[in-house]
Amino acid sequence: MNIKKIEHIGIAVKSLEKSRIFYEKVLGLSCYREEVVPDQKVKTAFYQVGNIKIELLEATAQDSPIATFIEKKGEGMHHIAFETNDLENNLKIIEKKGIRLIDKQPRPGTEQLQIAFLHPGATHGVLIELCEHPYE
Amino acid sequence: MNIKKIEHIGIAVKSLEKSRIFYEKVLGLSCYREEVVPDQKVKTAFYQVGNIKIELLEATAQDSPIATFIEKKGEGMHHIAFETNDLENNLKIIEKKGIRLIDKQPRPGTEQLQIAFLHPGATHGVLIELCEHPYE
Repeated sequence: MNIKKIEHIGIAVKSLEKSRIFYEKVLGLSCYREEVVPDQKVKTAFYQVGNIKIELLEATAQDSPIATFIEKKGEGMHHIAFETNDLENNLKIIEKKGIRLIDKQPRPGTEQLQIAFLHPGATHGVLIELCEHPYE
Repeated sequence: MNIKKIEHIGIAVKSLEKSRIFYEKVLGLSCYREEVVPDQKVKTAFYQVGNIKIELLEATAQDSPIATFIEKKGEGMHHIAFETNDLENNLKIIEKKGIRLIDKQPRPGTEQLQIAFLHPGATHGVLIELCEHPYE
């Protein structure tokens, strides 16, 4: 498998509004996009830092995966997204290596990416997203 | 404050040996350096991914900060390191903004970096390291 880069880091927050103050007023980053993803029950704010992104994620419902994560582990780093080509084929290769997948097929994510998550039980506790830009 | 880039992502693991199998045999990354940091009671393995690094961290003693983290939260993402210039001055500015610091002064980190940690209680649960390359 060829990892091209880290596409983004996802951070689970209780309140986008409060967290944004830290990222913008303390670290000096600029939010370039907000997005609501009804499917995932989250709203997000994106920051570009060098050539990768930080994605802040707030739950929009009590049964959102982000709400569940915060309840269990508290606010903090939620996932790392690695960019790759040929995501569908890479998922098959990874599964053959005995790695448990959350998504066996790519599905649409934020920013028009195709995405799939590996199960953190198979990755030493790190929730790993693999993603592909469909137009590259 | 001017953040130049994300320098690295630190990941707390129980066993470098076991985790390396995942990062190398599944994700296909190459470890370019191992380092033991007696001061921090950790041993580390570094991977270059695009222009940022992944640093796997294993505790070398029961009272290592990494052992404490794993006991509390389990294995997983431990910190994000943002690269900046003029670290000493930036720490003063951040403290004046009411952000609690773990390190009020820069101290030596891995790979000859000067580093300082902000307190996760002041950053919505994310352990943030600021770092500076001394020769840039």
